[in-house]
Amino acid sequence: MNVRFLLLISAIILISRVGLAQTNQAVIKEDFKPSTLNQPGQAYPQVNSQGYARFKIIAPAADSVRVSLGLGGRGGTILHKADDGAWTGTTEGPMDEGFHYYNVRIDGGKFNDPGTMNYYGSIRWESGIEIPAHDQDFYALKNVPHGHVQQVLFPSTSTNTSRRAFVYTPPGYEKNRSKKYPVLYLQHGWGEDETAWTNQGHANLIMDNMIAAGKIKPFIIVMTYGMTNDVKPGRIKDFKIDSFQNVMINELIPYVDDNFRTIAKQSHRAMAGLSMGGMETKTITLNKPGVFAYYGLLSGGTYAPTDIQDKSTVKLIFLSCGSKERPDGVRNAVTALKEAGLNAVGYISENTAHEFQTWRRSLYNLAPLLFN
Amino acid sequence: MNVRFLLLISAIILISRVGLAQTNQAVIKEDFKPSTLNQPGQAYPQVNSQGYARFKIIAPAADSVRVSLGLGGRGGTILHKADDGAWTGTTEGPMDEGFHYYNVRIDGGKFNDPGTMNYYGSIRWESGIEIPAHDQDFYALKNVPHGHVQQVLFPSTSTNTSRRAFVYTPPGYEKNRSKKYPVLYLQHGWGEDETAWTNQGHANLIMDNMIAAGKIKPFIIVMTYGMTNDVKPGRIKDFKIDSFQNVMINELIPYVDDNFRTIAKQSHRAMAGLSMGGMETKTITLNKPGVFAYYGLLSGGTYAPTDIQDKSTVKLIFLSCGSKERPDGVRNAVTALKEAGLNAVGYISENTAHEFQTWRRSLYNLAPLLFN
Repeated sequence: MNVRFLLLISAIILISRVGLAQTNQAVIKEDFKPSTLNQPGQAYPQVNSQGYARFKIIAPAADSVRVSLGLGGRGGTILHKADDGAWTGTTEGPMDEGFHYYNVRIDGGKFNDPGTMNYYGSIRWESGIEIPAHDQDFYALKNVPHGHVQQVLFPSTSTNTSRRAFVYTPPGYEKNRSKKYPVLYLQHGWGEDETAWTNQGHANLIMDNMIAAGKIKPFIIVMTYGMTNDVKPGRIKDFKIDSFQNVMINELIPYVDDNFRTIAKQSHRAMAGLSMGGMETKTITLNKPGVFAYYGLLSGGTYAPTDIQDKSTVKLIFLSCGSKERPDGVRNAVTALKEAGLNAVGYISENTAHEFQTWRRSLYNLAPLLFN
Repeated sequence: MNVRFLLLISAIILISRVGLAQTNQAVIKEDFKPSTLNQPGQAYPQVNSQGYARFKIIAPAADSVRVSLGLGGRGGTILHKADDGAWTGTTEGPMDEGFHYYNVRIDGGKFNDPGTMNYYGSIRWESGIEIPAHDQDFYALKNVPHGHVQQVLFPSTSTNTSRRAFVYTPPGYEKNRSKKYPVLYLQHGWGEDETAWTNQGHANLIMDNMIAAGKIKPFIIVMTYGMTNDVKPGRIKDFKIDSFQNVMINELIPYVDDNFRTIAKQSHRAMAGLSMGGMETKTITLNKPGVFAYYGLLSGGTYAPTDIQDKSTVKLIFLSCGSKERPDGVRNAVTALKEAGLNAVGYISENTAHEFQTWRRSLYNLAPLLFN
């Protein structure tokens, strides 16, 4: 385990939660519209075509209201009270495209914006806002055949409970009753859980759209909780993989192979994860070299050629991150892996940081490379 | 459409959101424990063995904090600030057993309790708390085979989008690839959505436990959004069933029959709903007498014998409510239906009102009567 790498990941997580784009623009266009993640009937929060976010919180008797999105060093976006008792404010600059977590500080307490839906991140259900992206078509809800996302409760004797996983089965799965599919095990990041890849990541819609466009052959995706909640960001190095690895290898995979029509062998099994889920992916794929043939680390570190004991069973190593993270680290690792004879592919998400737009794009770029 | 009935339902919805039990007890036992619905690591809200709820909200600079649960006429439970800046308070009396929605008023704004998870009700994601019940075993998460809850996105040309439904498939569904199953279409109430029956109602766990105990034969449950959001409680009479009926009859049922292994005929199809979902069930079953053979209204009104045109196709009418609602209405309707030669069954949930514990118990009592 590389401690420096893990500390770096921790720092990136903390910094990237700020999520503000680098460019400032002088004139804010007044074309704000409700965020697509708002609760039914809620007009705020809003976003404009430049990526600015505008908030409105009703709390007439409050003394101070602040939103955690915006310029981190200045404590986010401070809202100001209007005559009608509503607190409003706009981010100082445009946000990165895609999804952002946030919360609202009201008189010293941390709450959610009642205008928008909640998403599990930072070990709490946070408010979410969506900044329209130039490439949002690839994860849009379209009139194409849709796969199902199945909530399963699988038995776990090692943790003495039934554990939850979500299983994406592609369109046609219910009808082609003899067809068998490869499986991608896909992990969330620190402070998130098994709901993240579909709720924040739209993994199911990304798959539906690619399958409809003929860009990939259908496969199953399995998402479960990586048991990461008890880890503080600065202490990721203290995380012990054993419990989760046991659940993954000895309980979840057998359950999936027993209850879904999978091609139950290494050559048709992949593991990938974002951020701390990448760290888990790296550790488990290396600890259990006979289980997965495709490895993916999304903003989650790199493999060195010396990490791989048996190159013959590794069909793909996919490394990615946002251009605002450490793209050179990904590029250099891919070069070294290729020189060592491994099939390594790197992907850099332009103008994004340690955030879900990077990971949506990463899945979109990873999926066509799997199971070929 | 009976307008008085609908206005009554509206009134019941408003009153029952208060959710306080009738009995007051003088001595509050100090055996409070975190509610089972709390977010990971959160100690509050708490409940004690008598059904009291205790809240703790951090907002040091707030002027007033109030929780909507408690004595309605007095505006819920008023919290008081302790020396550490936390606002705390305990309900004046014990709550009914089971699930309750609530929210928190902070300085005049409506927010959620950051300690607990959110549940969609009253057209917003609300805070939720669970009061332990003497009969909670029937919806507990146990070490039994678990069915899957599948999120499906079905095409809807009438509403020009893909609509979401959740489909419970019983344990063994994936393995018995030739077996076909009956289907119960199960609707949520006003201000709720298709997530309610599994998140708040534990419909999947109720089914898993009954199937494991051999109390019922496995069947499929389908839950979708009843398009009820735009209705204000006092205006339920203005609700037009046409759009939802079209989605249900012409889009959802064909999709389910096409994508799941159903017994696709009236004799093996049921519809039931809670509260406003009961109103929808009554309207659709009567408008489309050839589609369903089993009808269930859970705190959702009654059928009169004259409502039923062709008694030969109706295999069961199930009517239920809490003992704190209008049990005589249910009892009298069942008597009249029986006298008219219909197979009517009534169920009264003891010591509960217009709330999810009534509906969990209603499903538990309805399920064994279906598809026999």
